[in-house]
Amino acid sequence: MTVLELLDYAGVAVFAATGALSASRKQIDIIGFLFLALVTGVGGGTLRDIIIGTLPVFWVNNPVYIVVCITVGLIVFFTAHLVESRYRLLLWFDAIGLSAYCVMGAAKGLSVTGSPIIAIVTGVMTASFGGILRDVLADEPSVLLRPEIYITAALIGAAAFTVATLAGTSLIFASVVGTLSAFVVRAGALRFGWCFPVYKPRPGRRPEDVM
Amino acid sequence: MTVLELLDYAGVAVFAATGALSASRKQIDIIGFLFLALVTGVGGGTLRDIIIGTLPVFWVNNPVYIVVCITVGLIVFFTAHLVESRYRLLLWFDAIGLSAYCVMGAAKGLSVTGSPIIAIVTGVMTASFGGILRDVLADEPSVLLRPEIYITAALIGAAAFTVATLAGTSLIFASVVGTLSAFVVRAGALRFGWCFPVYKPRPGRRPEDVM
Amino acid sequence: MTVLELLDYAGVAVFAATGALSASRKQIDIIGFLFLALVTGVGGGTLRDIIIGTLPVFWVNNPVYIVVCITVGLIVFFTAHLVESRYRLLLWFDAIGLSAYCVMGAAKGLSVTGSPIIAIVTGVMTASFGGILRDVLADEPSVLLRPEIYITAALIGAAAFTVATLAGTSLIFASVVGTLSAFVVRAGALRFGWCFPVYKPRPGRRPEDVM
Repeated sequence: MTVLELLDYAGVAVFAATGALSASRKQIDIIGFLFLALVTGVGGGTLRDIIIGTLPVFWVNNPVYIVVCITVGLIVFFTAHLVESRYRLLLWFDAIGLSAYCVMGAAKGLSVTGSPIIAIVTGVMTASFGGILRDVLADEPSVLLRPEIYITAALIGAAAFTVATLAGTSLIFASVVGTLSAFVVRAGALRFGWCFPVYKPRPGRRPEDVM
Repeated sequence: MTVLELLDYAGVAVFAATGALSASRKQIDIIGFLFLALVTGVGGGTLRDIIIGTLPVFWVNNPVYIVVCITVGLIVFFTAHLVESRYRLLLWFDAIGLSAYCVMGAAKGLSVTGSPIIAIVTGVMTASFGGILRDVLADEPSVLLRPEIYITAALIGAAAFTVATLAGTSLIFASVVGTLSAFVVRAGALRFGWCFPVYKPRPGRRPEDVM
Repeated sequence: MTVLELLDYAGVAVFAATGALSASRKQIDIIGFLFLALVTGVGGGTLRDIIIGTLPVFWVNNPVYIVVCITVGLIVFFTAHLVESRYRLLLWFDAIGLSAYCVMGAAKGLSVTGSPIIAIVTGVMTASFGGILRDVLADEPSVLLRPEIYITAALIGAAAFTVATLAGTSLIFASVVGTLSAFVVRAGALRFGWCFPVYKPRPGRRPEDVM
């Protein structure tokens, strides 16, 4: 198993765990758990494959990914009550998944298109799509709209991997650099509330008051 | 017309009806009706074709599906006021669509990949995606998060079809078995509130209270 | 640069601006701005390419689209506070994007499939998907559910372009006719509240009261 395959399974597994944790917060049944685990786990990679055009998508060619998601979903179903804060655990797993997936997305984007810009964009979209899909499906507040840094972490990870690869370092070195960069930034955001100066002027009014 | 084609048109038509019923609940205009009917009707099959990689998607090659959706949308526009509870009718049509689509998705997944696991996953995703899309677009409470059995019905139907096919029964027999299995389970859920013991420990707290 | 390329860049740029305006209303950080600008800008065309099967999607082959979205996102980040009503500006940019994209979608749908029905459906889906995606991601009230005419404008623009093309007029003439038709209808809806008689009988009850 190569380092990229390892990252891939790790990303799928932890995103599956975040989907299952969302399911537990919504108190849905076990099949709903497995469905949310599966969709969240493979969502980002599915979008990546569609955009790049490598169809059928990765898990159709290799059902092991599905087995991974279902196993993770079952584990969460039987252990989630042991966790003090499922939402906090969800955010940390999401951080790991984001870090693994931004490198995976960038690696595949770079190898198929050869363009660094496309590699970075594919990395960012891939890393964030699983979490966005989970939040829409489970009606959670979107991780995208949280105040602390999120997309930026994926951007830094994908860019670090792409730059390291173009600089001629080994695949394993570039992958580790990319994954760690993303994780450190996102972990800082979760732990210390790191954020950019946000757009301040004023929040949007409700459409009814504007029209 | 084969049994699979029949199921396909039936699934598209009843999902289109659920989209139009949602539109009527939101009191949007007739073109909005037809748009929601179309998107809900072809949504599941579109996802199926994208995942498996049989592009362009099915309705691009055969515009009859679009004519079906628009006809159904028009019928609903002029008759929805006759129905006592549009939401209940929506749920029952959704049940029929779910049953037809889980078999269609499994059949196409099986014929393209040959893998039973992929067939079942494709069946479940295909069957549930139209309804999920409708609920997101029309801002309805997600059918996925309802307490009674939903995804499970699609799972049972797709599994029954796949097992029957692998056991060597005829396509028509396997299709009928799959469709009926799914429908009986979902109908029981709607009529008698069938549900699994849900994940009980405790509902999720609001993110603000956790962080 | 042909007229279709011009329309394409224009559609992508103004949709990117609406995504960034949404981001400013939600007070998220600059990378969130650029992400929402990018996803909203290329969303409709991405769906179009997936449905028709021309993969990889257009912006993977031509990263200039990404540069356009990021530039627009930056401009909005530094100027949005100058605008009296960002939501109203968002709706007007959305109107321009809708008008450009319905023609682009119909043109590509027609050239790939040769079917006028598919051309019109692709035009409508493409034109509306960017805005729908933006509203879901940024948790804005869906433009699809607003009372005044929206989908109808895209339908009229796509139909006008398709009819003009089939009638043998030049590409530039058909494009201008299609874009202007859509824009006039949507502008009338925004300015004068044009709407169809909506589906009146009664709004939907809450699911809890029905079941």
